Amino acid sequence: MIKFVSSNRHKFEEIDEILRKNGIESTWINLKYEEVQEDSIEKISWESCNRLTSKIGSNFFLEDSGILIEALNWFPGPYSSYIQRTIGNEGILKLLEGKKRNATFVTVISYWDGEQIMQFKGKTEGVIANSIFHGRDFGYDPIFIPEGKSKTASLLSIEEKNEVSQRGKAMIRFIEYLKNA
Amino acid sequence: MIKFVSSNRHKFEEIDEILRKNGIESTWINLKYEEVQEDSIEKISWESCNRLTSKIGSNFFLEDSGILIEALNWFPGPYSSYIQRTIGNEGILKLLEGKKRNATFVTVISYWDGEQIMQFKGKTEGVIANSIFHGRDFGYDPIFIPEGKSKTASLLSIEEKNEVSQRGKAMIRFIEYLKNA
Repeated sequence: MIKFVSSNRHKFEEIDEILRKNGIESTWINLKYEEVQEDSIEKISWESCNRLTSKIGSNFFLEDSGILIEALNWFPGPYSSYIQRTIGNEGILKLLEGKKRNATFVTVISYWDGEQIMQFKGKTEGVIANSIFHGRDFGYDPIFIPEGKSKTASLLSIEEKNEVSQRGKAMIRFIEYLKNA
Repeated sequence: MIKFVSSNRHKFEEIDEILRKNGIESTWINLKYEEVQEDSIEKISWESCNRLTSKIGSNFFLEDSGILIEALNWFPGPYSSYIQRTIGNEGILKLLEGKKRNATFVTVISYWDGEQIMQFKGKTEGVIANSIFHGRDFGYDPIFIPEGKSKTASLLSIEEKNEVSQRGKAMIRFIEYLKNA
């Protein structure tokens, strides 16, 4: 049994789908924890995990995700959540008018096994769509078209999204580790 | 003698001008410290100060500033520095096309006297200009016109800016406290 710490229901749903498929039981610890301001998603995720070790006990993981848009100097990056809550997808589309639209979505999982922190990373390249496509609306999904797909992540089912998403890829690496540990 | 902790030379210059004028000696501790992710500038400033108490010793202060733009749901707020480094003033102007241009600049000073943390806040209303006016370029100054002025803060001298700026106002409150302490 493994604990997933997050205050985000959408993240848990995606993660739970992958864990179940792999026969791993999980508990969702719905907790908002403190994050540091850092330009590196790896470092934010590591620090958050490190601070929770004494609080949560062993065998838990959390994840930090961000979208990096090259034409915007990799904005919104580690502040993807705040920027989504303020200027939102509409703001991103406005900023990209007349600019290159490629973007990279990154997830870093940090896992505390009781002795050490391990990190597992997933990355998905893609492009920012020309408008907002509503569906399963979660963060930047309504404007992000993952490489190899012809529609935004918001129009994919959880299963379809997990196959190509940065979170799905990080989870697969994490699960491979767990199975061999 | 009072210590000011910051990795930002521009902030020290402005602060030093006000302290000198009031006969207060200061030392600049050029240090980049960790900040938490929080939507409240007060909380970020308080936490940073609290973490430094054991490191710096008594009688130091630091400050956290942010610009809050109403039409952008108070973006960029506590992440003003990161957002300046990525989309910059050009990005802000783009986001504001066709929108209301009023903005509030806020500074929160946190002071550790060896026993407790005290906070002093300054606020300046203003509008975002229609283009970038280069001068003394520091952060959002090239696009922020403080209330009562007809030009951007970048075109004011340090003395002129301190008279109307949020940082200047917070400093005046702080100095009043120091003089009566």
